[in-house]
Formats: sequence, C-alpha cells, structure tokens
Amino acid sequence: MKIFIPLIFLANFLFAQENSDSLIIRKIYSYHLTESKSYDNLHSLCKNIGARLSGSKQAEKAVAWAKQAMLQAGADTAYLVPCMVPHWVRGAKEKCYVTGDSKNKLESFAVCALGSSVATPTAGITTKVIEVTSFEELEKLGTEKIKGNIVFYNVSFDKTFIHTGSAYGKAVKYRSGASMAAFAISVTGAKRLNALLAQNKNFELYLYSDCKTLPDEPSYSVVGEIRGNEIPNEVIVVGGHLDSWDLGEGAHDDGAGVVQSIEVINAFKKLGIKNKRTIRAIAFMNEENGTRGGKSYAAMAAKENKKHIAALESDMGGFTPKAIGIEAKKDTLLYYKKWQPLFEPYFVFIKQGYGGTDIGELIPLGVPQFSLEPDSQRYFDIHHTADDTFEKVNERELELGAATITSFIYLLDKYGAYKK
Amino acid sequence: MKIFIPLIFLANFLFAQENSDSLIIRKIYSYHLTESKSYDNLHSLCKNIGARLSGSKQAEKAVAWAKQAMLQAGADTAYLVPCMVPHWVRGAKEKCYVTGDSKNKLESFAVCALGSSVATPTAGITTKVIEVTSFEELEKLGTEKIKGNIVFYNVSFDKTFIHTGSAYGKAVKYRSGASMAAFAISVTGAKRLNALLAQNKNFELYLYSDCKTLPDEPSYSVVGEIRGNEIPNEVIVVGGHLDSWDLGEGAHDDGAGVVQSIEVINAFKKLGIKNKRTIRAIAFMNEENGTRGGKSYAAMAAKENKKHIAALESDMGGFTPKAIGIEAKKDTLLYYKKWQPLFEPYFVFIKQGYGGTDIGELIPLGVPQFSLEPDSQRYFDIHHTADDTFEKVNERELELGAATITSFIYLLDKYGAYKK
Repeated sequence: MKIFIPLIFLANFLFAQENSDSLIIRKIYSYHLTESKSYDNLHSLCKNIGARLSGSKQAEKAVAWAKQAMLQAGADTAYLVPCMVPHWVRGAKEKCYVTGDSKNKLESFAVCALGSSVATPTAGITTKVIEVTSFEELEKLGTEKIKGNIVFYNVSFDKTFIHTGSAYGKAVKYRSGASMAAFAISVTGAKRLNALLAQNKNFELYLYSDCKTLPDEPSYSVVGEIRGNEIPNEVIVVGGHLDSWDLGEGAHDDGAGVVQSIEVINAFKKLGIKNKRTIRAIAFMNEENGTRGGKSYAAMAAKENKKHIAALESDMGGFTPKAIGIEAKKDTLLYYKKWQPLFEPYFVFIKQGYGGTDIGELIPLGVPQFSLEPDSQRYFDIHHTADDTFEKVNERELELGAATITSFIYLLDKYGAYKK
Repeated sequence: MKIFIPLIFLANFLFAQENSDSLIIRKIYSYHLTESKSYDNLHSLCKNIGARLSGSKQAEKAVAWAKQAMLQAGADTAYLVPCMVPHWVRGAKEKCYVTGDSKNKLESFAVCALGSSVATPTAGITTKVIEVTSFEELEKLGTEKIKGNIVFYNVSFDKTFIHTGSAYGKAVKYRSGASMAAFAISVTGAKRLNALLAQNKNFELYLYSDCKTLPDEPSYSVVGEIRGNEIPNEVIVVGGHLDSWDLGEGAHDDGAGVVQSIEVINAFKKLGIKNKRTIRAIAFMNEENGTRGGKSYAAMAAKENKKHIAALESDMGGFTPKAIGIEAKKDTLLYYKKWQPLFEPYFVFIKQGYGGTDIGELIPLGVPQFSLEPDSQRYFDIHHTADDTFEKVNERELELGAATITSFIYLLDKYGAYKK
C-alpha cells in the first residue's frame, strides 16, 4: 500500500462541527489514542502482579492496585465490595505420557489441569483412552465400556462462526462435567493423540495432577465511582474482571476490561464531561471460577436506595472494537440503533448481543445488559493459556476499545437507557 | 470471558433463509473459513519465493507462481500483461553511526536506504545532523544552513486518526523528495537521535549505502479470468500487487491481496456461482516503485473491445475486514449502501473510501473504484520492513478479508455498478 488520502476523516470532521455528540465522541477517541493510561495500567497489572487467581496473594495485591488506579483516574470515591471466593491451587506441574510395556515414558503431551478440577491419585492414572466427539457418542458407548478409562473429548471449534466466542460457546460444555480429574490438551496434542489412537487403540496413557481446593478466602470487587451531577441515584456500571487464571498474565482476559473501565473515569474527568448519573467502574473479583464478585455486588445493589439503569462489561479481549452488543429485543434495540451513525467513523456496530458474566448477576434486578464486542479472531489463540500476556495486547486496539466504551457510556448517561 | 451464547448467529441464519443473497454470502464466508487456499497460497508465496522486488529473479518466479495459482483456482484462462519495470538493488548493508573525534564508531543506528534512492559516495558521508519536523521548518532554515549536512525529518504519525493509513498519508511525503541518498530510521532510533541532538548539536553522523538503479527489466502482471455467462463484455477487476519491497516476505503488503483475489475465482467455481460478467483476478506488477503493471494493464484495457464496470483492490494488509471503501459521491454511495444489511453479520461497513494504486490507473477510463479496508492498527508495525512475514498474518483474518471481497464482487456481478 502506498498512500491513503484522509478524505473520510475530513468528512467526519465537517459533520462533527454540526453535531455536539459526534464532536464529543471524537474528543473521547482522541483522548484515548493520545493521553490515556490504559496501556500503562495494563503493563503495571500484568508485569508487577501477573496471574491473579481468586484466593491467591496476587489477587489480593490486584485489589489494592485497582483501588489505587481508580483513585488516580479521578474517581470521587473508590471502595471494596467483599465476597468469599474459592481457592483452587494447581500444585505441581501436570504430567501426561504414553506408557510402554514396562510403564516407561514413550511420548509426552503438554496438558494442564482444568481449573477447579481434583487431583489424580498420588501415583497418577495409567489406563486406556476412549475418544469421543460428543456427549451423545459417550452415552451410546455405555457405562461398561467407559468405566476406569480416560475419556478424550476431541471436539474442534466450528470455523464458520464469525464470532469465535460463539464457536467457544458451542464447544465449552466439554470443559466441565468430569467428576474426576480433568485435563486440557493443546490442539496440536489432540491431533497427535487422535492419530495415535487411529493406529492402535490399546496403548495406555499416564496422567498426573496435584491440584486441590482449599477453604474459601475473603476477597473483594473494587468500585470506582463518579457521582452524578443531576440524577445521582441512577447508576451506570462499566466493568471487567480483576481475577485471572493462574497461567499467563490475564492480559486480554481480563486485564484489558479492567483498565478500559478505569479509563472511562479518567476520560470523563480529563475531558471535563459532567455526568448526569452516577458512573461506577468495577473490577469484579472471581469471574473465572465462581462469579462471587458479581453475585455480592448484585446483592449489595438490591439493597441500595439507587436504581441501576445499565451495565456494560468488557470481557472478550483487548482487540479492535467491532460492536456494542445489546441484550435486547427489537423495540429496545431500535432506540440504541439511532446512535449508530455516531460510531460509523470508528467502524463500530450497535447490534443485538450479550452482556457479561459479572453484570449478568444484575439481570434479576432488571438491569439492561451491554458489552464491548472486540474482534475475536485471535482471542482463542491465547485464552486461558500461558500466552495471555501483556505483549499480546496492541496499544491502539486496547485504546480504541476503551474509547468505544467511554462513548457509549457518555450516551447512556446523557440520554438514559430505553424505557418502555 | 466464559460463555458466549450464539444468539446472533441464529438470528442471521433465520434471516438468511428468507433472502437468497444473504444465504449465498453466508456460503461464501463459510467456504473461505473452512476450505479456501488463501492461507496455503500465502505460505507458498512467502516461503518458497519470499521478497520479490520488481526486476528481481524472485519477481520473475512470482509471475510464474501466480499464473499457476490462478489456473489451479479454476480460472478459464490465465495470461501475462507485459510491462517494463525499474530495477533497483539495495547492495551492501547500510551503515549509520555517531563518529567520535577520531572518526571511530560511538553508537550505531539501524537504518535502511529508501527504495529508489541513490548511493552515498564509496567512503560514506560524515557530517552534522539538522533536525526538522516539517518541510516548512526546513525552508525557514534556508539553503546556507542545510547545505552539506544530513537532514533528519523527525515526523511522527498523528495518533488520532482511526485509519492508520490516513496518518501515513499525512507523513509519507517525507519519504521521498531527497535528491541525494535517503535513509529510513526506526521509531526507537529516531527518538534516540532526537535525544542526542537535544544534548549536543555538534556531533557527526556517518552514513553509507551502496544501492543502485540498473536498466529497466521486462516483467508482467498476471490475469486470471472467468468469463461472464451473460454479459461477457463487461469486466470486473479484483486485484492486489505481486511485487514487494526487498526486506521481509511481502506477506501483508501485498501477498494477502494477491491470494485473496485468486481465491475469489476459487470461491465462484467451488460454490458453483455463475457469474454474469467477466471477472478478472489480477496480480499487478511494480506497485511499489513505478505502478508500471497498473499502467500497462490500463493501456491494454483502453484498447480492448470490453467495458470495465468496476475495480476493487486489496492492498492494506491481510487483517480483519472493517469496510468496503468506495471512491464515490453521495448519490453513488447510496446505491451501494443498500447492500449494508448483507454485511452486518460480518461486521463490515459499506462506506466512502478509496480505490488502490494499481486500479487507480483505470480512473481515466471512468472505472468505479473500490477497496477492502481491513483493520489498520497493526499495519505500520510491519509495513515495508523485514517484519512483513507470513507469521504476522492470521489465517482467519486473511480469510474473512477474502470472503468480504468475494461477497462484494458477487453483488457487483449480479446487480452491476451504479449508473447515473
């Protein structure tokens, strides 16, 4: 590519002069792309704290970090909402290999224990492998054939989904359901295991894990609040989750959502936008294995003398934003679709979608659900793996996501949520 | 992120059953995401041939490769359109360092000669550095102060542009214009050089390059054609450029555009779509330093007894598609905007935009211009550098781009271009 003439930008700019919302949204995007702290904050969270599984020392450090970051961003107040969280620990490195006649190691596989799963016996498990591609296939085989064996669920993502999250939604049921030790294997490993089984179904596999669940620990979600100037009793929530799995650094999942939410506060303050309603940036605890933070926040909200009018979650990675997803029926959707032209310069759709796991706990209170939908093509290359590190997050992609969230929250605050 | 319920996909699917265009476009996307050869073709072009600067042996190999790939994709015919191309060679590795009192090397910088530039004298150049941030600043300094010195244009991208291509458009004028040897320095290097000059303006820099321009060489653009079944005399062009700079592998720039264009043919053939008009996938030669392929194709088109009704170029990288850009005024744009709902399930906008360098040569013939606009946030991390390699291209992102192009060409073929 040689030269790209910025005709489009000029056109937007001219339009912007005639419309204060588009002008303010342009300022919001410029702020995030040039001055925001989201990328620096993500670096700090990933590199100074790192992985922060619920109940761990790192999660405790992350709580203090988030409160400090909320205050630095200009929150009028920042506070902790307590919850009791599960405390699962992985223990020693897992082992998985094909055994020879004398139980020697013939070929090993990289595996990891699935979160919340139990350990194998201390000596490990050595037994045959039964491969299935669905629960239905497993059921057909019957208990007799399965008993005492390792079940290998070989289920690939459906590549035809545009949202890789939808393909995950279809495949994820195979992640849970085992009452025994449960392991994850890589795509490469699964292909190799499949090939070995095609040659010979009678070899034995050795599996070992040492994970355990300790007693629940006290922990916290972190709230940073800017009070509404006109209708302070109406609350808008924008959040991500602070906890992560223990491998990687929880950068895309979900450091990104946390730093973007904090940056909403910073943008409102730096740009001098006077919010009508109360805005709460929330770093939820324990999304990954219990949603205890989401539950305890919803319990608090139910008792408060305030009305939550909307909640938005960013928990699909820090990639280039593609849409604001709205969990709504057609008439509701039309209300928000009117804002679509404001987002076209930024290539963002307003569309039917989903909320988020943490804010989902607010559904019984009737709180409308929104989410940031970033491009999802690269998400499952790193999701819940040791590769979910700061280096995998692109600065501008992260900032564009924060700008999209801030702009949508600005409109929600100014015009309110849809009322029937 | 935990679970994403595929509600949206189901909604689209139900809509699709009522609408044959949306159903065919859904099939086009599924084809590209599961069966297409674009990623394999890109691997072959990048790893078996690699960098392919105009006039090089690699460019010659790439011409034969492209013709073969067009035929394998199912083109009714594939042929070469000749052109004479510049033949610039980089020569020995460039050198750049701060000299000490005794002309010793104190601190070196990674630089590369800008394409088409001339060599330094054999002994190199050793002189002071004058830093400017614009042509205006250079002009103010006047000839006397500049003469015999190295001019350091320190101009950064404007980060507020959403399209990084627009920021490039504003900064790229500093890439050409030097009648003497011209070098590019990295962002890190530019920051360091700026810091050194802030401390002391009197140090000397040594620069050496050995590049030269040899006589023009004969070369070719490659055309793969599927003849129209109803109006064969109307032609739709879809293309990218086959040549690349000599560093890297020309993966995003523009192997991506070439393999996507070839895959348009493959998709039409594999899905049994009967094209009304003649479709030509074109791998243009010499986009980077002369546009000779674009010019010679336009000259041929002017003499043909055929009418070109549209031309689309993919030359902004193999990233997730964000839009089809249309170089058009408002009334024309409205005609294409009617297709917008068909692209919403894929997060693609139909909008005012740009064509491409190669197809731009068809503008004097009145040929409407279109382009694929992928997400541009990561493009200038790798553009024209040694990092533009196959590994930097994500398979699904590349395929989604090919699917978007194929779908738009399908609509152009079925309904024709806008007529006043």
